[in-house]
Amino acid sequence: MDIAALRALTPGCAHRNHLNNAGAALLANPTIEAMTHQLHLEAHIGGYEAAVASADRIDDTYRALAELLNARADEIALFDNSTHAWNAAFYSVPLKAGDRILTGRSEYGSNVLAYLQVSQRTGAEVVVVPDDETGQINVAALADLLDERTKLIGLTWVPTAGGLVNPAAEVGRIANDADVLYLLDATQAVGQFPIDVTAIGADMLTGTGRKFLRGPRGTGFLYTGPRALQRLEPFVAEIRSATWTGGRSFTWADGAQRFETWENSYVNVVGLGVAVRQALDFGLPNIAQRSSDLGARLRRGLAETDGVTVHDLGREQCAIVTAKVSGVDSEAVADALLRQGINVSTTVPEHNQFDERGVHPLVRLSPHYYNTDDEIDQAIAAVAALAR
Amino acid sequence: MDIAALRALTPGCAHRNHLNNAGAALLANPTIEAMTHQLHLEAHIGGYEAAVASADRIDDTYRALAELLNARADEIALFDNSTHAWNAAFYSVPLKAGDRILTGRSEYGSNVLAYLQVSQRTGAEVVVVPDDETGQINVAALADLLDERTKLIGLTWVPTAGGLVNPAAEVGRIANDADVLYLLDATQAVGQFPIDVTAIGADMLTGTGRKFLRGPRGTGFLYTGPRALQRLEPFVAEIRSATWTGGRSFTWADGAQRFETWENSYVNVVGLGVAVRQALDFGLPNIAQRSSDLGARLRRGLAETDGVTVHDLGREQCAIVTAKVSGVDSEAVADALLRQGINVSTTVPEHNQFDERGVHPLVRLSPHYYNTDDEIDQAIAAVAALAR
Repeated sequence: MDIAALRALTPGCAHRNHLNNAGAALLANPTIEAMTHQLHLEAHIGGYEAAVASADRIDDTYRALAELLNARADEIALFDNSTHAWNAAFYSVPLKAGDRILTGRSEYGSNVLAYLQVSQRTGAEVVVVPDDETGQINVAALADLLDERTKLIGLTWVPTAGGLVNPAAEVGRIANDADVLYLLDATQAVGQFPIDVTAIGADMLTGTGRKFLRGPRGTGFLYTGPRALQRLEPFVAEIRSATWTGGRSFTWADGAQRFETWENSYVNVVGLGVAVRQALDFGLPNIAQRSSDLGARLRRGLAETDGVTVHDLGREQCAIVTAKVSGVDSEAVADALLRQGINVSTTVPEHNQFDERGVHPLVRLSPHYYNTDDEIDQAIAAVAALAR
Repeated sequence: MDIAALRALTPGCAHRNHLNNAGAALLANPTIEAMTHQLHLEAHIGGYEAAVASADRIDDTYRALAELLNARADEIALFDNSTHAWNAAFYSVPLKAGDRILTGRSEYGSNVLAYLQVSQRTGAEVVVVPDDETGQINVAALADLLDERTKLIGLTWVPTAGGLVNPAAEVGRIANDADVLYLLDATQAVGQFPIDVTAIGADMLTGTGRKFLRGPRGTGFLYTGPRALQRLEPFVAEIRSATWTGGRSFTWADGAQRFETWENSYVNVVGLGVAVRQALDFGLPNIAQRSSDLGARLRRGLAETDGVTVHDLGREQCAIVTAKVSGVDSEAVADALLRQGINVSTTVPEHNQFDERGVHPLVRLSPHYYNTDDEIDQAIAAVAALAR
């Protein structure tokens, strides 16, 4: 990868040391240009008319996401964010009193709230699988907990905080062996490393555009495989997801479209497609190698800094790094870094409900492949200065 | 209103005779500039960082919508489209077997599909109120049908096809007298004429940005009043709508935020705010006068054309005009007009399930205040030529 060339395509690199890619990554020029082009087309010929004119670009977003995930285009549904995509899958799973949902300690905060609501509403039980000694989901414990009551395994592949890459494919094997639906939240995974839904065995997989895929804010997607289409009843019905068949009857649209809602920001949709194509062009193995190398450099540098404790979990670790500076509020650390042009974020306990460590809030630093060693070292030095 | 100046602010006016404002209206330069500014800010300093920098612009979208509807900003929730907004309201209404939903013959296609799904799921009954002799909802018949089984009145204020402005405030008085929840779909109403949710008595009101408000595609909103907040349980829970309070418990966010989903396209949100401010600046009474005048001119001209039949309903009529050309498919009419630079659309039976007239598909022409008499006359002449 020619990092200098990549950075030249990314206007934000000139303005910030952007280590908040787990929040939203920096857009590249081709993505910005595709969005601006669609916006001006809409302004010049009309919004619906522009969508017709851009039909192939819009379709290509589905095809590009399918290629990214090793799926078919008709297995992809588009949404305005990954939470909406995840909700479209989860709230469509039929659940009743006595059923069980198995999930992990590092489950994303929104997913946990949805589990709690559906548990209260239906009487289904949410069971939190313990971690193993590295902090990833304990796969043996998961297998032991599975029984005929289990109707869903819901897992966050890469949690928002921090380091951890859960063993998604091992969990998929267990889910498939037991014929249990498997909903994988890949929001922080897509764009960070290669993904193959078939190899993983996920029935439903959700992602966002704005994080490691470097797509626009306000974009998300859902993959649904054959078992999901058989078992799920879409949680809402409307003219894109369903078709009236006379009287009081209707049928669901084919494929994943049955989970979509009319209509969409095609400015964002075409931007997402271009961002995904860019990731495919660069190569996800290349992206994964570089972003995890930068993550490891950052993690090592912070761990070696006096007064700084790294709180990352997991056997396999990614480009998301979390740490605490002794005696300094994490929010204050983030603010101080921002004043130096270094973008980071913080974690909060309310979004990590099943995390029993009591470590949040943490400072979260998340590089991506376009960051440089110098930027990593600058961030480490800035944190070290705050720790002194 | 200085129409020439308005048109100069609207790049599409130079390219098209845009009579598809009921599909998506033409964007004005201030809206395009606000969106482009936010997009470049995101690209330059980061997506989350740009949202912080634009917090006041983002907040102003809530305030502007509140002003538009005579509501409070905390009574407004933002969505990616009006269907999502409507679903967030409707699917949050508690319904059980034996309950009744009352709706009208001109109910929007997506709403009907949602009613049918929830009816199948819960055993609640969907009752279609007859029209009066003008084709608007028969208010006396609605009042007669109301009883203790009625849990919701769902009404489309301005249907997608055509002419009709339903008597929303009369329905509101009946709903309030009976203490029944009232969900008003104002998707084709917002931006076309003044709206006062308090005067109407709507508990929930939904709208879109892209139609007569001239906002971006991929924007929608929901107003929820006090009675809705008391009676509805939000249909999904996540970190924006709900807050974890320890253990397995959570609370809903205050106000309409409890219906929102994290996160959003702030490019679109700021664009929506600017479009709403523009409508407020022009004045909704002015906009209403001019757009209904243009609609009336178009309706009259088509009605007087040999071989053309207007199919608009209603006592009070708006800027949406539907017609059929004898012996020519409506799709072919729309295609022929498009080749002459005239943007229109067509209706389909599948989106007008409770319309018993059997008239669809129709050609739909929908001017807005920035259209001119000449454009209206050009469209009438073009349709007349096709009818010969």
